[in-house]
Amino acid sequence: MVSILERILAGDKLALARAISMVENEEPGAKDIMKKVHTMSGKSHIVGITGAPGVGKSTLVNGLIKAFRSEGKRVGVIAVDPTSPFSGGAILGDRLRMQSHALDPGVFIRSLATRGYLGGLSKAAGQVIKLLDVYGSEVILVETVGTGQSEVDIMRYAHTVVVVVAPGLGDEIQAIKAGILEIGHVFVVNKADRDGADKTIQELQFMLDMSREEKAWKPPIIKAVASRGDGLNEVARNVKEHLKVLQVTGRLTDHMKRAAEFEVRELLIDSLVDNVISRAKAAGEWERIIHRVAGRDLDPYAAACRLSRFLRSS
Amino acid sequence: MVSILERILAGDKLALARAISMVENEEPGAKDIMKKVHTMSGKSHIVGITGAPGVGKSTLVNGLIKAFRSEGKRVGVIAVDPTSPFSGGAILGDRLRMQSHALDPGVFIRSLATRGYLGGLSKAAGQVIKLLDVYGSEVILVETVGTGQSEVDIMRYAHTVVVVVAPGLGDEIQAIKAGILEIGHVFVVNKADRDGADKTIQELQFMLDMSREEKAWKPPIIKAVASRGDGLNEVARNVKEHLKVLQVTGRLTDHMKRAAEFEVRELLIDSLVDNVISRAKAAGEWERIIHRVAGRDLDPYAAACRLSRFLRSS
Repeated sequence: MVSILERILAGDKLALARAISMVENEEPGAKDIMKKVHTMSGKSHIVGITGAPGVGKSTLVNGLIKAFRSEGKRVGVIAVDPTSPFSGGAILGDRLRMQSHALDPGVFIRSLATRGYLGGLSKAAGQVIKLLDVYGSEVILVETVGTGQSEVDIMRYAHTVVVVVAPGLGDEIQAIKAGILEIGHVFVVNKADRDGADKTIQELQFMLDMSREEKAWKPPIIKAVASRGDGLNEVARNVKEHLKVLQVTGRLTDHMKRAAEFEVRELLIDSLVDNVISRAKAAGEWERIIHRVAGRDLDPYAAACRLSRFLRSS
Repeated sequence: MVSILERILAGDKLALARAISMVENEEPGAKDIMKKVHTMSGKSHIVGITGAPGVGKSTLVNGLIKAFRSEGKRVGVIAVDPTSPFSGGAILGDRLRMQSHALDPGVFIRSLATRGYLGGLSKAAGQVIKLLDVYGSEVILVETVGTGQSEVDIMRYAHTVVVVVAPGLGDEIQAIKAGILEIGHVFVVNKADRDGADKTIQELQFMLDMSREEKAWKPPIIKAVASRGDGLNEVARNVKEHLKVLQVTGRLTDHMKRAAEFEVRELLIDSLVDNVISRAKAAGEWERIIHRVAGRDLDPYAAACRLSRFLRSS
């Protein structure tokens, strides 16, 4: 019998979808697949696409899929944005446009719900990225809404982060941008046919000039009207250019190191903390201790200390 | 010499601010303070205020401060929303309005940055809530932008969650609401003088009717124009009413139990995982293992297993 991993390596979409479900639900067997997948992965260019709701991220993603496909590149898409049409968040028209890619064997699209993962959203995203990687996706586009810790965690996986903004979304939305400025490598002012596009570019340029120190890569600001396809090739070109700079400067190696650190720490949480809790529960001690902490009879530090006794002696 | 905790209990704002900084920076001594603070805390009503950028959360918070102050209640405010004027995100006018409370000894306002905490944002928020609690804040308002895992984590501390929406923010922003529907106890349609307010209420009512099962508390939908003060007393009244229902039904006890579970787990991560990593680093083994994982020579599960050896034998 052919294993699910062999089928994924042979380009079987159904097998890939099945493996992703296994990972999402933490099914038995997922871990063994992911152990092997890890050692075979590391070939894809992982590109994060982030920005506030309403800036047109999904339309941009759609356009980038086309741009990369026209060069013959295989593309994977992960939508972790609750407002993305890829995730089922939105509008029928967008939805239908996406579905045109469903027939293309070189494109694989998967949405991840924003909550409810057993092992955490960013962990699930990291594993889906690796599965798409060994499946042969040369570019993996990861779309997130860009606020909140788990989205920032997911952007850690990306080699290149594309930050999308749009003119005229109001001061409060502009304020969000300040937080994601520091993680962006390519900035896109989408809907650039709207009033205020030049002002948005100027503000962005000003903020970038203020905050940037690194020299090897100067983040470009690109005007686009993704709904008409304008500017998309330039975005794609800059995304590829950024990868080259990462490779030449050795930063790609640093990136892989940071990703490994993050992932190993997450697994230590699984194997140590969640294991202690399971054992304490089995002994009836978890309930008792939590009851005392909730009742203010025991402080949580003392509780954690007592629970440490339940560590598996290995 | 009077301890910092005694000064906080005596209502010293400077001591409170100092203790919060100690917690934020994980200074030595913070833990001993927090151990004592935990056993004295548990008296405040913790109220989360969440919603997308632009719905007017801060104006609502401002109005709620006034409403609770007019009843003589002491109020604490924690802003973890990057777009909040409390957090320094935004507009000068809002900023000045907030500052009027700075002179009121019954109001304490603190913003938490959305990243960069040593121990994690939600942990810091949980500790600041307890400090405000023992300081004597009868109501603690916690404002977040409502997307992302760390914000959802913070909302776990809240007894009552107020979800704020506004008419006419576009379909994509509306889609976010679906995700926070299930955590809301009181819904506010702010800017209700705008076109589309009734439609927003209808949609919200429809979604609530679809998703709700619990009977003890039927979430109200309240029209407000926070900038004019309209509807704020009704919001405050419903918030207090919700607390009463929690007390009567025993859900307040369940809530404290869940908060304790979350907190103890976070501390176990500190004491087990971060301890293992420190020890492995000291032995030079962390670097070596991460290098192999990054180079695809070792899988992260095997790495976590090897690192477990560095557990402190207690």
